[in-house]
Amino acid sequence: MRSSRRTFLKHLLAFATTFRLFMTVAGAQSAAQSDPLPSWNDGPAKQAIVEFVQKTTDKSSPTFVPQEERIATFDQDGTLWVEHPIYTQVVYCLDRVTAVVKEKPELANVEPFKTVLSGDREAIAKLSMHDLFKILDATLTGMSVDDFNAEVKKWLETARDPRWKRRYTELTYLPMIELLKYLRANGYRTYIVTGGGQDFVRVYSEEVYGIPPEQVVGTMGGTKYGYDKEGKPFLTKEPKLLLNDDNAGKPEGIHLMIGRQPYAAFGNSTGDRLMLEYTKAGDGVRLAMLIFHDDAPREYAYGPAQGLPDTRVGTFTQELYDEAKKDGWIVISMKNDWKRIFAFEN
Amino acid sequence: MRSSRRTFLKHLLAFATTFRLFMTVAGAQSAAQSDPLPSWNDGPAKQAIVEFVQKTTDKSSPTFVPQEERIATFDQDGTLWVEHPIYTQVVYCLDRVTAVVKEKPELANVEPFKTVLSGDREAIAKLSMHDLFKILDATLTGMSVDDFNAEVKKWLETARDPRWKRRYTELTYLPMIELLKYLRANGYRTYIVTGGGQDFVRVYSEEVYGIPPEQVVGTMGGTKYGYDKEGKPFLTKEPKLLLNDDNAGKPEGIHLMIGRQPYAAFGNSTGDRLMLEYTKAGDGVRLAMLIFHDDAPREYAYGPAQGLPDTRVGTFTQELYDEAKKDGWIVISMKNDWKRIFAFEN
Repeated sequence: MRSSRRTFLKHLLAFATTFRLFMTVAGAQSAAQSDPLPSWNDGPAKQAIVEFVQKTTDKSSPTFVPQEERIATFDQDGTLWVEHPIYTQVVYCLDRVTAVVKEKPELANVEPFKTVLSGDREAIAKLSMHDLFKILDATLTGMSVDDFNAEVKKWLETARDPRWKRRYTELTYLPMIELLKYLRANGYRTYIVTGGGQDFVRVYSEEVYGIPPEQVVGTMGGTKYGYDKEGKPFLTKEPKLLLNDDNAGKPEGIHLMIGRQPYAAFGNSTGDRLMLEYTKAGDGVRLAMLIFHDDAPREYAYGPAQGLPDTRVGTFTQELYDEAKKDGWIVISMKNDWKRIFAFEN
Repeated sequence: MRSSRRTFLKHLLAFATTFRLFMTVAGAQSAAQSDPLPSWNDGPAKQAIVEFVQKTTDKSSPTFVPQEERIATFDQDGTLWVEHPIYTQVVYCLDRVTAVVKEKPELANVEPFKTVLSGDREAIAKLSMHDLFKILDATLTGMSVDDFNAEVKKWLETARDPRWKRRYTELTYLPMIELLKYLRANGYRTYIVTGGGQDFVRVYSEEVYGIPPEQVVGTMGGTKYGYDKEGKPFLTKEPKLLLNDDNAGKPEGIHLMIGRQPYAAFGNSTGDRLMLEYTKAGDGVRLAMLIFHDDAPREYAYGPAQGLPDTRVGTFTQELYDEAKKDGWIVISMKNDWKRIFAFEN
């Protein structure tokens, strides 16, 4: 009896050990699976996000937010994907100049098209805002919405950025993609609120970010209803600015397109300042976060707040940094808060 | 044995009868429950709706539409609620003139405010479009978005229409409310696309139609970001027209706010013509419907297509009627297609 009892106990012990091991492994797996933000390092930024979601989605929380009011807005350039050294949409417009001049050869000797065609990078970089708007008008308007969409789609498939030699749509930040999904899984509707062209971003926003066209708020141009030769109606993109979705245009664009004050907003530059301020001004718990580009080896480091020159692409001033600290906005350090930046990294 | 068998059979018969009765009642209930459009009479209009939904939501259908593309757009005045004898928003603006003059007494002797304050209905009816725009600017702009929302909400609670003596929000068409719900239950996102003010309609659209603010496309005015005395940011409604959401403005507004071509569109006047044309121009199965106000006893009858005078509120010309018939748009006769018009009817 003793022997059989010992055997029984041995088996029980073995079972218990195996079971405990199993539970440990299972627990570790479950913890890994249950971390919705695996590309974020533990720290104040990640913690702020998780706490915000808990406080606004837990029904017993005094700061619970009904699902229909859960709106989160994201700047795009520098917040969801790389903006340096030059905004992707501007690269598109410069690339399109060749095609535009082919259709209108008289532009070849007219500025600023002549400079763009020369390929002289330094001269191109010195073009004025006025010149840039001429290029935007010529390359982004005057065609049907369908033709424009097809052109952008084709360009995105073939164009490569000069540093990583990848499609521009691959230069999206993995931690932010995880954040978009995490918020959506918690009943938030995620919107892009960008200074870039609304129609441009809509071409890829659903595939790249899971954000449908109706949730893209951007700089808005007018369209004009008309008919083709067969009498079929279509919309032409007009050189008429309806709303410049930058600075004050961001809260104004949010009101126009959404009609609700966001509960969370994410940006990375002075152009996002008023969107974050507007978001934080609401009642209850609100989340405002600013991405700080401080990782030259893995991405870029830029902006006066780091004592670096203002390259006018995604300006992050010391003033903005101070305001963030003062008003309880969370600054995300790419270097410290992000374990991994791009999905293509090993 | 015979006796007990007879008893058994009697019980069985009783049970079967009861069971059949039960099944009949349950079947009738189930049939009633399964009709999603109980306020619609059987006929071509109801049939067109049900067929459209089947053809676009049945996965085995060659004209199946993925859920993210299921967009249905609805005009408001005359399509979702009563527009005669005068648009509700115009009644609001006229009512607001008193409050505006109280704040700016110098307007009391200035036209068109003087005429509105006189209460002379005939003189008011003769005001020009230019005068009307002055009234719209004075009553719809110059205040914060929050103050405007609160004013409209208060007015909707107290104002009564002259014919039914009911709140304006009760003058919504029950068959259309059923249709909105039916489409949403089948994965469609329902949008209002109205010539009325976007901000005005947003105040009640969620409660009245189940349509959230971000799905209201209307005539759009600009706003201006600023600060109150305590430094809290807010948006002021500006007298700046961004888009007149009528005629060609409807497809243009749909592109701006949604960025997708609708699969179904509903209207009732020439102002909706291009929205319906744009919708029908898409590939696959598309539904375009026009409500025909031909029911003077229960609502109103108006429009040249019935040989009645053009009152310029919801004009329905013979030309529009002919185009509808030619292009396969479905005309909904209020008289024949709607069993019940308002929820408050017995």
